[in-house]
Amino acid sequence: MRFTINTNRFLKAINLVNRSISTTTPLPSLAGILLKVEPNSLSLTASDFNISIRTVITADEVNIEEEGTVNINARYLHDIIQSLNGTTTTVTLIDGTLLEITSDQSVFKINGMPAADYPNISFDCSGKPFNLKTKIVEEIISSVAFACSTDETRPALTGVNLKAEGRELDCVGTDSRRLSLKKLELDEEENFNIVVPVKYLTKIKDSIADQDECEVKIDNQRITFSFANTVISARLIEDSFPSITHLFPNTFKQQAKLNSRELVSAITRSSIMKYEGKDTIKMSFKDNKLELTAISQEVGTSYDVLTPISYEGSDLVIGCSGKHLSDAVRVMGNKETLLYFNGEAHPIIIKNPEDDSLIQLISPTRVYF
Amino acid sequence: MRFTINTNRFLKAINLVNRSISTTTPLPSLAGILLKVEPNSLSLTASDFNISIRTVITADEVNIEEEGTVNINARYLHDIIQSLNGTTTTVTLIDGTLLEITSDQSVFKINGMPAADYPNISFDCSGKPFNLKTKIVEEIISSVAFACSTDETRPALTGVNLKAEGRELDCVGTDSRRLSLKKLELDEEENFNIVVPVKYLTKIKDSIADQDECEVKIDNQRITFSFANTVISARLIEDSFPSITHLFPNTFKQQAKLNSRELVSAITRSSIMKYEGKDTIKMSFKDNKLELTAISQEVGTSYDVLTPISYEGSDLVIGCSGKHLSDAVRVMGNKETLLYFNGEAHPIIIKNPEDDSLIQLISPTRVYF
Repeated sequence: MRFTINTNRFLKAINLVNRSISTTTPLPSLAGILLKVEPNSLSLTASDFNISIRTVITADEVNIEEEGTVNINARYLHDIIQSLNGTTTTVTLIDGTLLEITSDQSVFKINGMPAADYPNISFDCSGKPFNLKTKIVEEIISSVAFACSTDETRPALTGVNLKAEGRELDCVGTDSRRLSLKKLELDEEENFNIVVPVKYLTKIKDSIADQDECEVKIDNQRITFSFANTVISARLIEDSFPSITHLFPNTFKQQAKLNSRELVSAITRSSIMKYEGKDTIKMSFKDNKLELTAISQEVGTSYDVLTPISYEGSDLVIGCSGKHLSDAVRVMGNKETLLYFNGEAHPIIIKNPEDDSLIQLISPTRVYF
Repeated sequence: MRFTINTNRFLKAINLVNRSISTTTPLPSLAGILLKVEPNSLSLTASDFNISIRTVITADEVNIEEEGTVNINARYLHDIIQSLNGTTTTVTLIDGTLLEITSDQSVFKINGMPAADYPNISFDCSGKPFNLKTKIVEEIISSVAFACSTDETRPALTGVNLKAEGRELDCVGTDSRRLSLKKLELDEEENFNIVVPVKYLTKIKDSIADQDECEVKIDNQRITFSFANTVISARLIEDSFPSITHLFPNTFKQQAKLNSRELVSAITRSSIMKYEGKDTIKMSFKDNKLELTAISQEVGTSYDVLTPISYEGSDLVIGCSGKHLSDAVRVMGNKETLLYFNGEAHPIIIKNPEDDSLIQLISPTRVYF
């Protein structure tokens, strides 16, 4: 095995496949990148079993002198290639699994692992391919991912539910206390209902950032993204995602429009006071004023008054997590925020008055102060 | 107690005294800031016993309505004042130790601690005052502090030795494996030999950054810095600092001048290979070349070749910590670096060919590869 390649091009490929490597993998060979040199290409494969990335560099970008294959520790390979000064780098398998890396005046000799011990990683996916704009994945991450759970005891909630019916794509993230629903539009009609782990979707978003679109395939177990001689395959979460259709009522008892900046600023102040370690805030709508109150038994109390832009409905006292509400308002990214209520015991619905593609929901918290 | 003050001015004073607060203080009252309102001033005092800061805001910057004193948790006071929207803030002691903070539409009520329980913090220092340029403290931090030890078992080495004889000020930091000596010049003749804890000197540097100079006093136990109605008092380290005069020989067996960027780049590459967990690099000067080698038993080897700008003396093979050498070269901040040697068993001396006020020293490491 021997090839010469532009150092930056090699580093870019290493950075790409490195995203799939877990620092806590129990299998030593999965701490490595599988390098495979064939007559007309160099491929790099890395995986943590749940997400796998393979990228192929074709002969126009790599000068191949000898075929071969070896598995090299990803962290060392990355640190070495990143440290090199030379424009090009030559990689040679000199003896068994000993790899020589030379560039400019630098020579590294590092011990690899036998390629034969690398597990067989399949990138096959039986689904019908379709094109997906990169922007769609970015919008899912920016508007839905934050609401997902990090608690592995309910696996489905650590993922984003992607549900396509025709050209409509509904994307939902929830940790059961808050929920974010983003409605997006596909180029073509599709029909699927899957749960993609949010941590892998984030890695996919970072990996495809340079592209305009990808080819996507979905089957019962996996979703694959293909672009620029690269395939990313991520395992889906098989647990079923909770149904959310009943969560959004058509009628509301109270409705408020607020200045987003003022609201976030007041919540930030209130959240300094933690009630039993939680950032519960109490909102009281009365006489066209919104009073925000928070209490920490040890520290003290905070009190703020805002004037809603508009308020419809009867007086209301309702509690919720300050962080959940300020996250929701920030993700909307709009100057004004709409809040809808059905009394103190039902979820708060948060909308952007200028864009109804994003709907958020927060469970209320019972307040005793 | 009641006063009204510009919110940003109050926050600035809180940030200033907060630097002396330790998050791990065993004494609850030292987690607080002592606010004291007198007829013509508001003072803020904070301390961890080893470093104490007091700043006084005079009546031209604070509107005093009622005298009084209370001790308020520093973190909450900071977070609250930072979160406020209003230009001015009014602080009132309303009942016992309950403090009311109002600004714009926000009202906080937080529980304080009795001022009577706050320990008596003395800012007295019997030394003769002299003026010190802020720039001097900045130069000590930037050129010497990095070499200090963090190991509390040899307290003297966690400090910077400041030794004044006449107008010459020698500043030394060492962890016993490396040493940095910066020679600075005082405005007037002084005579002292003290060890200031580097972590407090860093806090002092940050606190005086806005000033051109401070008034400094030194006695057997403390150093104080006074400026703009503020006093910072730091406890000195009483253990004696090791003598360093014998460490700098007048003659050398070998001397090399190197391009700093090339040297740091090669060390960075070599340091990827750790020998028994240490970043030992081997330097071999021979035939007007410098070979850098590093070995990790598990991973492999690295090898680099540099061409010194000049080299005088016999061939030399010497080992040292890659990080210590690259730190030394970086702190010099010069395009070229001078290295002086007396064989493989004696310290390496590092100098800037264009500025002899900074001299660094690194112990060699015996290399077995």
